[in-house]
Amino acid sequence: MPPATNVHALILAGGSGTRLWPLSTDARPKPFLRLAGDESLLRQTFGRASALAGAGNVWISGRASHGMLIRRELPEVAESHLVLEPRRRNTAPAIALSALAVEAEAPGAVLAVLPSDQAVADESVFAASLVAAAAAARKVDAIVTLGIPPTRPETGFGYVEVEDGGSPGSTSKGEKGIDLSPRSVVRFVEKPSRETAEGFVRGGRHFWNAGIFVFRPSVLFEEMRRSCPAVLDAARRAEEARRAGNLSSFGSAFSSSPSVSIDVAVMEKASRVLTVPSPCGWSDLGSWQAVWEFRAKDRNANAASGGASFVGAASNLVLGSGKPVCVIGLSDVAIVESENGLLVTRRDASDELRAWVEASAKEGRK
Amino acid sequence: MPPATNVHALILAGGSGTRLWPLSTDARPKPFLRLAGDESLLRQTFGRASALAGAGNVWISGRASHGMLIRRELPEVAESHLVLEPRRRNTAPAIALSALAVEAEAPGAVLAVLPSDQAVADESVFAASLVAAAAAARKVDAIVTLGIPPTRPETGFGYVEVEDGGSPGSTSKGEKGIDLSPRSVVRFVEKPSRETAEGFVRGGRHFWNAGIFVFRPSVLFEEMRRSCPAVLDAARRAEEARRAGNLSSFGSAFSSSPSVSIDVAVMEKASRVLTVPSPCGWSDLGSWQAVWEFRAKDRNANAASGGASFVGAASNLVLGSGKPVCVIGLSDVAIVESENGLLVTRRDASDELRAWVEASAKEGRK
Repeated sequence: MPPATNVHALILAGGSGTRLWPLSTDARPKPFLRLAGDESLLRQTFGRASALAGAGNVWISGRASHGMLIRRELPEVAESHLVLEPRRRNTAPAIALSALAVEAEAPGAVLAVLPSDQAVADESVFAASLVAAAAAARKVDAIVTLGIPPTRPETGFGYVEVEDGGSPGSTSKGEKGIDLSPRSVVRFVEKPSRETAEGFVRGGRHFWNAGIFVFRPSVLFEEMRRSCPAVLDAARRAEEARRAGNLSSFGSAFSSSPSVSIDVAVMEKASRVLTVPSPCGWSDLGSWQAVWEFRAKDRNANAASGGASFVGAASNLVLGSGKPVCVIGLSDVAIVESENGLLVTRRDASDELRAWVEASAKEGRK
Repeated sequence: MPPATNVHALILAGGSGTRLWPLSTDARPKPFLRLAGDESLLRQTFGRASALAGAGNVWISGRASHGMLIRRELPEVAESHLVLEPRRRNTAPAIALSALAVEAEAPGAVLAVLPSDQAVADESVFAASLVAAAAAARKVDAIVTLGIPPTRPETGFGYVEVEDGGSPGSTSKGEKGIDLSPRSVVRFVEKPSRETAEGFVRGGRHFWNAGIFVFRPSVLFEEMRRSCPAVLDAARRAEEARRAGNLSSFGSAFSSSPSVSIDVAVMEKASRVLTVPSPCGWSDLGSWQAVWEFRAKDRNANAASGGASFVGAASNLVLGSGKPVCVIGLSDVAIVESENGLLVTRRDASDELRAWVEASAKEGRK
């Protein structure tokens, strides 16, 4: 599929992940890890972004402290397309700032936002739904999200609920016969109860919100003027300073923005949001459990990187550091080693892990 | 307790241990590991040997390839007391060779043989029984072993069976009121069935054979002349070459010896063997299970070296390499890391581990 005309893509390269210790750390967070294959998640996301927009139209939003890491992973991205935040202010200010830069370089472009702490099993379905979302965003004054059909009653995710009765626009079928028609979102639901989530899975009107969306920047700015003008103002001042090469003003303007997510600041209040369904085998890789579920496994359901041996052991995840690893007589265990430490855990104990990592960090700060 | 007069001690520093991968390797086998505390097992054994005989009367029998390791662990041992074997020929040739060297330096001495791949929990009981054994060996024409009262029906050990009716000699009580009288051994039993071993534990007439024994070299040589003259002859020729500084003759003479254990070559056929009971909390540290049993534990029965954290985890063993280790939601697991590899195993699966290590070694040789 050739890149569409005047489509740009913004990759969000920030984020952390206390539930992925000892691999994910502040110095090298999740996007820089090879969790879903031989390339880092950031590099994989760059592939998806390039397929949509062409490599020359890809932008990266990241933390200033990760500048070198990003440049090493993505040497083909021009310095002018690298929008580094001096302070963490969550996603809304980062996206506003980059959207202003895109609009200045390519007026009238369509912009797709892609988080880079995720994985996709079926790249062709993902690409087709992203193209469909970009086409819709070009035609309609709306923010268009990708909606992931839920495969389990996940209580930790946000959902979008679409209008009953199917597609509001023309019916377009993707290459695998998937209905890629955009559907109108009626509301966002954040972290439902188990019972509610089970209803969502059965009902077919709810999709996981993967934080992937496409819009014309003018549409985003219009929504922001209404819902979060302080974020937009700070971004405008920061972008002007950035273009003028005034780093100090850039830093203070950006830092003056409220710290808020794009979901809370814009999406949940937006006048028109559409969703294109994308049954692409998406995963947030939010825990070792999720990483195990996503990865290829041997016939005993063991997933391993590098040379691991399993003796009477099934359904384990091993991410080693290159040394021989031997697992004997254990099941449903995650074993992860890095230069930061060694984790051996029941695979589904991600809450306990997060609590321990946070407590250790607190201890360390004392 | 001051060292006894004209008592020498021979430490056996050879041995390997496929059931202690990834810590124990051919290049650094068990005696050189810190399995039972802050010092290596060899260093701990040297402490016991010195307490009995004085540091100047301690001898080391080891493999030539471990010469540097031994010198680094035990810098106070004179070069003339370091008896290095050019080839592995099991324990009988090694002990014969060293006993000849001891007899040449200190005619009429008593010699205690101490393997260094073991641990002792109660050093004072061990020391008292070793002194009692040395005293008996001086008086009587017999080989005197330490007998460990069995604390479980172990089927992997050898046992000595003593005469019914208690001590044949004078009754001597140690400082903790333990009966240290030597008792006559009527037979050796190698690796009994479970049922037999249970009977041994109940009966009180069987002791674990820890491979610790004391004798006058002349008594050993007399037994060897009868039971394994080829071993003694080879050792004599090797010792003569060693004293003459003829390394090549030494190597060929020693290598010409039959390869046989001291138990098979001498003990099981010896005309008179005595045993001094030694309830000293002895362990062979023969598996990760045994290492866990021996080591100090926290209130959740976790034993760990270095900085390990346990969350909802009990009865685990962690021997790390210094990095932080976190164990969540698992019990009865052994986690051992070294520069050679990482093992995560059900604590009691030592047979599976040995099979895997042996298969891997075979694979590696191909």
